[in-house]
Amino acid sequence: MVAKTPDFDKLFNPQSIAIVGVSSQLFQFGGTSFLQRLQEVGYPGRLYPINPKADVIRGLQCYPDLTSLPEVPDLAIVCIPASIVPEVLETCGQIGLTHIHILTSGFKELGTPEGVRLEDAIFSIAKRCDLKVVGPNCMGPYSPSARLTAWGGIPGMDGLIGVISQSGGITQRFTELTCSLGIGVAKAVSIGNATVLDAGDFLEYMAEDNQIKVIALYLEDVREGRRFLRLLGQINQKKPVVVLKGGNSDAGNRTIASHTGSMMGNQEIWDAVFKQTGSVRVRSLHEWVDAVMALSLLPETVSGNGVFLATGGGGNSIIYGDVFSQEGLDVPELSGKAMEQLRQKVPALGSIAGNPLDSFEIFANPAHIRDVAGIVMDEPNIAMMVVDRLIPRKAYHLPDLPDQTRAAIEILKPVSRKKPTVVTVDSSGGDMTLAKQGTNMRKAFCEKGIPAYPSPERAARALSLYHRYHCFKARKHL
Amino acid sequence: MVAKTPDFDKLFNPQSIAIVGVSSQLFQFGGTSFLQRLQEVGYPGRLYPINPKADVIRGLQCYPDLTSLPEVPDLAIVCIPASIVPEVLETCGQIGLTHIHILTSGFKELGTPEGVRLEDAIFSIAKRCDLKVVGPNCMGPYSPSARLTAWGGIPGMDGLIGVISQSGGITQRFTELTCSLGIGVAKAVSIGNATVLDAGDFLEYMAEDNQIKVIALYLEDVREGRRFLRLLGQINQKKPVVVLKGGNSDAGNRTIASHTGSMMGNQEIWDAVFKQTGSVRVRSLHEWVDAVMALSLLPETVSGNGVFLATGGGGNSIIYGDVFSQEGLDVPELSGKAMEQLRQKVPALGSIAGNPLDSFEIFANPAHIRDVAGIVMDEPNIAMMVVDRLIPRKAYHLPDLPDQTRAAIEILKPVSRKKPTVVTVDSSGGDMTLAKQGTNMRKAFCEKGIPAYPSPERAARALSLYHRYHCFKARKHL
Repeated sequence: MVAKTPDFDKLFNPQSIAIVGVSSQLFQFGGTSFLQRLQEVGYPGRLYPINPKADVIRGLQCYPDLTSLPEVPDLAIVCIPASIVPEVLETCGQIGLTHIHILTSGFKELGTPEGVRLEDAIFSIAKRCDLKVVGPNCMGPYSPSARLTAWGGIPGMDGLIGVISQSGGITQRFTELTCSLGIGVAKAVSIGNATVLDAGDFLEYMAEDNQIKVIALYLEDVREGRRFLRLLGQINQKKPVVVLKGGNSDAGNRTIASHTGSMMGNQEIWDAVFKQTGSVRVRSLHEWVDAVMALSLLPETVSGNGVFLATGGGGNSIIYGDVFSQEGLDVPELSGKAMEQLRQKVPALGSIAGNPLDSFEIFANPAHIRDVAGIVMDEPNIAMMVVDRLIPRKAYHLPDLPDQTRAAIEILKPVSRKKPTVVTVDSSGGDMTLAKQGTNMRKAFCEKGIPAYPSPERAARALSLYHRYHCFKARKHL
Repeated sequence: MVAKTPDFDKLFNPQSIAIVGVSSQLFQFGGTSFLQRLQEVGYPGRLYPINPKADVIRGLQCYPDLTSLPEVPDLAIVCIPASIVPEVLETCGQIGLTHIHILTSGFKELGTPEGVRLEDAIFSIAKRCDLKVVGPNCMGPYSPSARLTAWGGIPGMDGLIGVISQSGGITQRFTELTCSLGIGVAKAVSIGNATVLDAGDFLEYMAEDNQIKVIALYLEDVREGRRFLRLLGQINQKKPVVVLKGGNSDAGNRTIASHTGSMMGNQEIWDAVFKQTGSVRVRSLHEWVDAVMALSLLPETVSGNGVFLATGGGGNSIIYGDVFSQEGLDVPELSGKAMEQLRQKVPALGSIAGNPLDSFEIFANPAHIRDVAGIVMDEPNIAMMVVDRLIPRKAYHLPDLPDQTRAAIEILKPVSRKKPTVVTVDSSGGDMTLAKQGTNMRKAFCEKGIPAYPSPERAARALSLYHRYHCFKARKHL
């Protein structure tokens, strides 16, 4: 198995990069903006802009073509018009430049005979010369530890997540979102039309990468379905694979053909794929990020589906109970002993001891969280905990308090190692001060390893997916 | 009908208020904090704090009891311990003080014989003396035009929404959220245990209030079920009633008994209520606000369920297509003529003409929105439009641009009068600068009457509920 793992190290950790097709114009998407971003982010390797008409661009010496470079670079980023891409690939083959990312679009996805012909040419040259080609029509590799973060999440943050995606934009959003929350991505790759290297190839590679704990996959379609199914099932047993499958609708499918040139996959086949492999199915960008966050930050075992909900407000706690129950989680009654202890900590007037817990002190006083966690976390029916971090404010007749996030984190860190714990920080709406405070709070919790969600709905879905994955895995391992 | 409409004007527009039970302590939830808030918000009427042991509190003369006041106030807010509430109600009856909000809790919701006895006493005194009692165990009336906004959304904003709720906290969140987005609430009332005045009474009242266009209802249970069902069906035909029903789960129901003393309603009965009345069912706080926003801001007719999705990015547009389809909306293909026109406006490389539309110019160039809307809004299959307002940024290889929200609003205002149009502004995550900008953008769109949602999922659900309501109404009216 190890011997067969594809060698993509030059792709994700290149010591030198040629950018084929850099214009001297100030702003232009493509080679120019990739070069700009790599310089801004402090890419430490050697950069070779290729432009036959320029001597120097952005302070770097330009070269007329790949053959005139002082070395064979580890990676080429190809940003020239589609019609001349095959020619450049031939040159790569000749000089032994094996790892190539083709940014250029205008191939099969155009639906023209010329587009198909050019893409077929890429395929045959790559096979003949043994080239590792990513794309075409994609954003290519991303790796914060190598400062290869020309797209998304600049300057990027190293971490436990691997991303494989047929959409550059979706993956930019993913890496930006996680990075902004202080959650790192080890490696990501946008594979576009996936003409040569396919999702399956990168799945195999990331399966063997011990740094990667969770794999996030955005797919529109796959070639070699049987191989993919086998890999997905095997690898998902080892580490969770969270799949956002684009094209669950006629509308989505219509667009897929024009996006990556894929033929749409049959819905029923995909239903079967998820059922058989146990991979985690999500339906939107946020659900994808939310589930990956839970699966990468929370412990790798969970003892059941019982969740304790620590919140405040009668109606609010009732809605919390409903929302988590609707996601298939259990919100069990506490034992008599725990209820007795809880009643000593929670006032009879204005609060409600129980699960869900209605106690405004949860928001204002981190020591109350510790007391409550101490009581409920020994309950056998409670496997997980959710703590609502509503920001106390005047509208709730609460005094302005200093931010208690730091204290709450100190208390929740050991608790969450015992049983998976997440928080909710809801600061949505049109209040800028609140939005700022809530955004900072979410980030603070997440970067300390406690998943923080902006609503109970999103927390419930993420916990439910997390729990279902570990159930599936445990059953399979029995 | 008009003659029978309950007279709650003194409740929502009192010229004078007695607050029974104001402590001289600096901060205390209850009479003291209500008085503070009313002063802060500039309540223009006369305020009478009642405290037998103090002369002056917060600059106002104190009175020992209700009988010593210089006038009979329009409203009493009762914040004294439960055991002496009946006595105060008797006094109200004697002096002709008819409108009373009982903040105090500690009645039936405690589950004690004493709590039940005290609540029964409230009921019988109110009936005998014809008192309009809101509560007990609630936040009472809220009315921005009267500057009666002691809870939530301070200073509040007048508008088209009416809120009736069995949870003060949930309603505080609602009024705060809508107010922060520049969307006004005409009147809200938190009815708590609803011992005397019930949801049905306030439904009748708000049905006749011509300012109120949409009613938002949070319910745990109702008395007089048949009357409520009849009212809900009748009134929902006239104006949409959006219902968040707390207690859709065992966990939610367990808490209800302790919250408002209600016995939980049977789930199947509630399913039938929604089916029969056509009232709009939502399942979380945000879904509630989102649906109310769509129903109050968008036109009162919609020609079908076809939606045009103007967004950018291949994967992103595919996910948009999936998300809106999954909510039961149609994302139809465009006519040949429209496609031809669209192809002239959208580059062949890097964009995809169609529905969903993948065109990055949608984000960067408001004139492009106008061009696209001009093409698709005449399509007979397109009844609604969604415009993605992703904030252009470096992570997408886009230049920093000045905020284009004002221009986008100018373009979308006339479009949205023709066919319902909403925008999405997604700025979630841990990036404070983005959160600020996105929050301000959402607010700017909403306050100009264009509903703005923080994700495609939430926009899709809100549009779907909006469309279903108007379908139901149209069928019933045929």
